[in-house]
Amino acid sequence: MITKSNILEAHLRIQPNIHRTPILTSSSLNQITGCEMFFKCENFQKVGAFKIRGAMNAVLQLSSTEIEKGVVTHSSGNHAQSLALSAKKSGCKCYVIMPSNSPKVKVAAVKGYGANVTLCPPTLDNREKFTQEIINNTGATFIHPYNNEQVICGQATCAKEIFEEVKDIDIILAPVGGGGLLSGTILSTQFFSPNTKVIAAEPEGADDAYRSFKTGILVNSHSPTTIADGLLTTLGDLTWPIIKDGVENIFTVTDDEIKSALHLIFERLKIIVEPSSATVLAVILKNKKYFEGKRIAIILTGGNYEVK
Amino acid sequence: MITKSNILEAHLRIQPNIHRTPILTSSSLNQITGCEMFFKCENFQKVGAFKIRGAMNAVLQLSSTEIEKGVVTHSSGNHAQSLALSAKKSGCKCYVIMPSNSPKVKVAAVKGYGANVTLCPPTLDNREKFTQEIINNTGATFIHPYNNEQVICGQATCAKEIFEEVKDIDIILAPVGGGGLLSGTILSTQFFSPNTKVIAAEPEGADDAYRSFKTGILVNSHSPTTIADGLLTTLGDLTWPIIKDGVENIFTVTDDEIKSALHLIFERLKIIVEPSSATVLAVILKNKKYFEGKRIAIILTGGNYEVK
Repeated sequence: MITKSNILEAHLRIQPNIHRTPILTSSSLNQITGCEMFFKCENFQKVGAFKIRGAMNAVLQLSSTEIEKGVVTHSSGNHAQSLALSAKKSGCKCYVIMPSNSPKVKVAAVKGYGANVTLCPPTLDNREKFTQEIINNTGATFIHPYNNEQVICGQATCAKEIFEEVKDIDIILAPVGGGGLLSGTILSTQFFSPNTKVIAAEPEGADDAYRSFKTGILVNSHSPTTIADGLLTTLGDLTWPIIKDGVENIFTVTDDEIKSALHLIFERLKIIVEPSSATVLAVILKNKKYFEGKRIAIILTGGNYEVK
Repeated sequence: MITKSNILEAHLRIQPNIHRTPILTSSSLNQITGCEMFFKCENFQKVGAFKIRGAMNAVLQLSSTEIEKGVVTHSSGNHAQSLALSAKKSGCKCYVIMPSNSPKVKVAAVKGYGANVTLCPPTLDNREKFTQEIINNTGATFIHPYNNEQVICGQATCAKEIFEEVKDIDIILAPVGGGGLLSGTILSTQFFSPNTKVIAAEPEGADDAYRSFKTGILVNSHSPTTIADGLLTTLGDLTWPIIKDGVENIFTVTDDEIKSALHLIFERLKIIVEPSSATVLAVILKNKKYFEGKRIAIILTGGNYEVK
């Protein structure tokens, strides 16, 4: 059970080690969508994504014995880099299991933060087996990318910062993958801006959260296919109950809709975000009537995308 | 003769109509270059470039009779959009002469701000002839893209904002094309941060300012070829004397060096800038020893660049 104090403490704990990212507005995008949007730019965050918030919060709560034994996770994306950097800051060893088909540049980035990377065959079974082996051999603490209360508290600080700076937000929108950011956003909204509704954006090709929400039964396996590569994961048993009760609605968008929104962000906001971030604007563009005239906070989750 | 008061007044005049753009930093870029850099993000400015500052300042000083007759300029780039938007805000007609080979998207953008666009054959002679015809027919006031004191005062406000926010800047760097931004930067530096040195960055393929500076004689024609399409113009008789006396040095960079710096900005700052803006970082990367350990303000001039 995560409390308001947990989130307040998480924010104080991680603040010295993360950026307070800016909130951008664009009159031309407001004109196109018919609503007033506030873009929280986690693409400018350390490691280029909000994920550092959760990982940092988890690592900063380890005991000195745990620090000595290290942390371990499996991730091919922003959580891997985030945990590696958080561990480095605390002088803590970090083991990362990455699928053998991970892009070389991502493996290099994780190694660049000083983590010990093990490549495994790209299946969930192998990922878990390899992780367990590391735990058995080293006694390292496993830090799940999203199904972890400390991680959820860390991700919650992003919405908290928005509510501190922008008042009278009608709707806050976040993408949903494993649900760490979404559940943290729901909790911060309940604690710091209870009149705001939380809406989630999900790619059609990875719509487990949408189907879970519509049926009320957690869908915990799927074969996702989407360009929004930060949203391939499924909800966890910690994130699902928070989302089930706290999200107002979940909208899905196609990859083409995500691509259009992505290029609109490039063109109008002049910032680089990754496709996962663009799902949210895609949802607004697809459902203009629903959002018309509203003041909307949008979490742009990260910027790890290579443009030409 | 532009005075400190002229720039102070220009800033007060245009402030309600422009953005106060943010200044970004990047620890990873500081590590790569060995200096401490402060990036003034004019890519987030209205129309996506600093040019709105000068155009707005010029238009806001027109008399009501002049407003009625309108303004005219020749430009294929950011000045055209800037003048069009500035005129629109003042309820002033705007005529823009654009070369017939201008990208359609740029013509559309200028028309989108309500300007009356005339396409002319792409030579300097034609540009001037067409402009003169408009002046003869309408009595419109010609607003030169850079060789105009009001425009220079407007561009000077960019450096002024930097000096207000960041103290003890050793060096301020700006790209040079026609020299409007550079001469304004020099003046603001003299008035507001006299211990700071001004350095200019120029593409090798459009190095008229470099050659003028090195020989002391204004080079006023050349056949430029560079991807930094905002820097094709030559210095004017108003900008040259200010630059001649006020710039500490001018460094040139190749198009390949500009492209590398551009992608480094995409990758590390997560923002979209146009190639002209990247010349400055390219200069630092090429001359690391010169800039080592210094606190450096960098003007990122604009973001009108289409990424894939």
